[in-house]
Amino acid sequence: MSLTAVGSIAFDSVRTPFGERERMLGGSAVHFSLAASFFTEVRVVGPVGEDFGGDEIGALEDRGVITDDIERVAGGETFFWQGHYDYDMNVAHTDDTQLNVFADFDPKLSEDSRNAEMLFLGNIQPDLQRRVRASCERAEFTALDSMNLWIETTRDALKEAIAEVDCLLLNDAEIRELTGEPNLAKAARAAMKLGPDVIVAKRGEYGAALFTEDEFFAIPGYLLEDVRDPTGAGDSFAGGFLGYLDSRRAAGESTLDHSTLRQAMAHGSVLASFNVEDFGTERVRSLTREEIDERLRDFRRITHFEVEPRGESGRSSAAPAERPLIN
Amino acid sequence: MSLTAVGSIAFDSVRTPFGERERMLGGSAVHFSLAASFFTEVRVVGPVGEDFGGDEIGALEDRGVITDDIERVAGGETFFWQGHYDYDMNVAHTDDTQLNVFADFDPKLSEDSRNAEMLFLGNIQPDLQRRVRASCERAEFTALDSMNLWIETTRDALKEAIAEVDCLLLNDAEIRELTGEPNLAKAARAAMKLGPDVIVAKRGEYGAALFTEDEFFAIPGYLLEDVRDPTGAGDSFAGGFLGYLDSRRAAGESTLDHSTLRQAMAHGSVLASFNVEDFGTERVRSLTREEIDERLRDFRRITHFEVEPRGESGRSSAAPAERPLIN
Repeated sequence: MSLTAVGSIAFDSVRTPFGERERMLGGSAVHFSLAASFFTEVRVVGPVGEDFGGDEIGALEDRGVITDDIERVAGGETFFWQGHYDYDMNVAHTDDTQLNVFADFDPKLSEDSRNAEMLFLGNIQPDLQRRVRASCERAEFTALDSMNLWIETTRDALKEAIAEVDCLLLNDAEIRELTGEPNLAKAARAAMKLGPDVIVAKRGEYGAALFTEDEFFAIPGYLLEDVRDPTGAGDSFAGGFLGYLDSRRAAGESTLDHSTLRQAMAHGSVLASFNVEDFGTERVRSLTREEIDERLRDFRRITHFEVEPRGESGRSSAAPAERPLIN
Repeated sequence: MSLTAVGSIAFDSVRTPFGERERMLGGSAVHFSLAASFFTEVRVVGPVGEDFGGDEIGALEDRGVITDDIERVAGGETFFWQGHYDYDMNVAHTDDTQLNVFADFDPKLSEDSRNAEMLFLGNIQPDLQRRVRASCERAEFTALDSMNLWIETTRDALKEAIAEVDCLLLNDAEIRELTGEPNLAKAARAAMKLGPDVIVAKRGEYGAALFTEDEFFAIPGYLLEDVRDPTGAGDSFAGGFLGYLDSRRAAGESTLDHSTLRQAMAHGSVLASFNVEDFGTERVRSLTREEIDERLRDFRRITHFEVEPRGESGRSSAAPAERPLIN
């Protein structure tokens, strides 16, 4: 089993009501890879500058992420994002974005990365996503994330990229924006018509929803008492989701099996929940598989209910026929 | 088993992207009572004007709701609300509110209403809620709903009212506002300190969360392709939740049993989902218990996942020790 992830590798400076950090390791490919590393072999593809050092590489390799395709651009600086969150931690406010080496990113995949059976196209320019997709001919399952920027500026290219993947992961508001359909279930159906068999709507603290041709599934967010930094939650979700799915695919199961997809959704939610407990990658870097499994059991417990057969106490839907006037 | 509900009885004029209606039967006590009527005997308490006629009373009595304590105020007009929803159906825009007979509402409960074992204090002025609470001495389980208006204008009275009930039902943003705590789990814990054993956070289309002293539970919204009018969804949720809970209480179960509370949450969600499928009370008035039971089974199916024991494919959390430098 192996999973190639392309996306941003970044330094993030983040302020939330619970503290702030300067130039932490971040980026979509980083959060994704760390989360997926608990379940499968991950190769990360993306550019960094000369300011990206051994500590950052070490953080990925400590989790077993293969960093051979991290391209260090001579004389360049790593992509930088600065933002803050107020008390509504669902909304990120961007204060500064410096594309740096990302401005001229031209993905170069090694043979091992090209041979991956599973591929994650993180949130980058859609034409780049298409190029990476085309170079990974053996990928059995491909997933794509994107954002409102590409929906608004490169809609046609994005639709072509979406047409070439098996799974689309987007925030629910973005699925609505992409399809022009305000109802999420209808929007997911419209998105499926673009090509993918699986649509995952990420809903921030409210969880996520999964749509396939004839099934859907909804999962709430794992409720936490302490959310310190939501940056990277969506990518951690995607990493948990696809990483787990790859482990099941490698064990011979279909990536379209609904029960497997549901479990993958739960794994994604759990990884996202750990990610937001601390700044940047701090929590996931110290995470263990045992903690993941424990929270999964807990998550199932707190979302599980039974439907009891209706007993004697059930009231009939038959209602009295008489209609007395008001007294 | 019997359940008394006090709250607004209204005419609603509503416009949504899917149509509009003039002067429909509405109000918190109405939506609540219709939903609860599928599970228990419901008495509705509230004032109406001379414009409230046999058709409106009939709509309640067709569902078996006991309307003896609907007080018709001579020369008065029924509470009127006019509002609209844009494509974000989570947000109601109020265009007109006419309190009318509601301005001088002084709840008068018959002996039967006072003797109810379960009591729902719908969203009205907190001092009125307290008076009704005090008059229902036999109530074994009481629940209170409120809104940002009362949090902002009569916070102390509201806190006293909350101290006297077993269950607080509020929108999640309102629980945060009431307690000044941005994190929902912490806000629910703070709300519990005011008195109630059970806190229910309503989250609109995203579902609801339940908090008790040592457990919590989260349920997503039932995803619908057609949401025509969200007015009354929260009250329908409360009606399904408390009505079902009363039927289980009458069958000898504890209202604090977590499994029962979870099932009540699912019943509330299902009633809310039917409510929003059509304008005002139109869908719930034609609803059958069989349709409720069918959607409950469906709801469980689309929210259910298993946690598989970890197999051979599970990757160890042990990671390679070497940290090669970047290539």
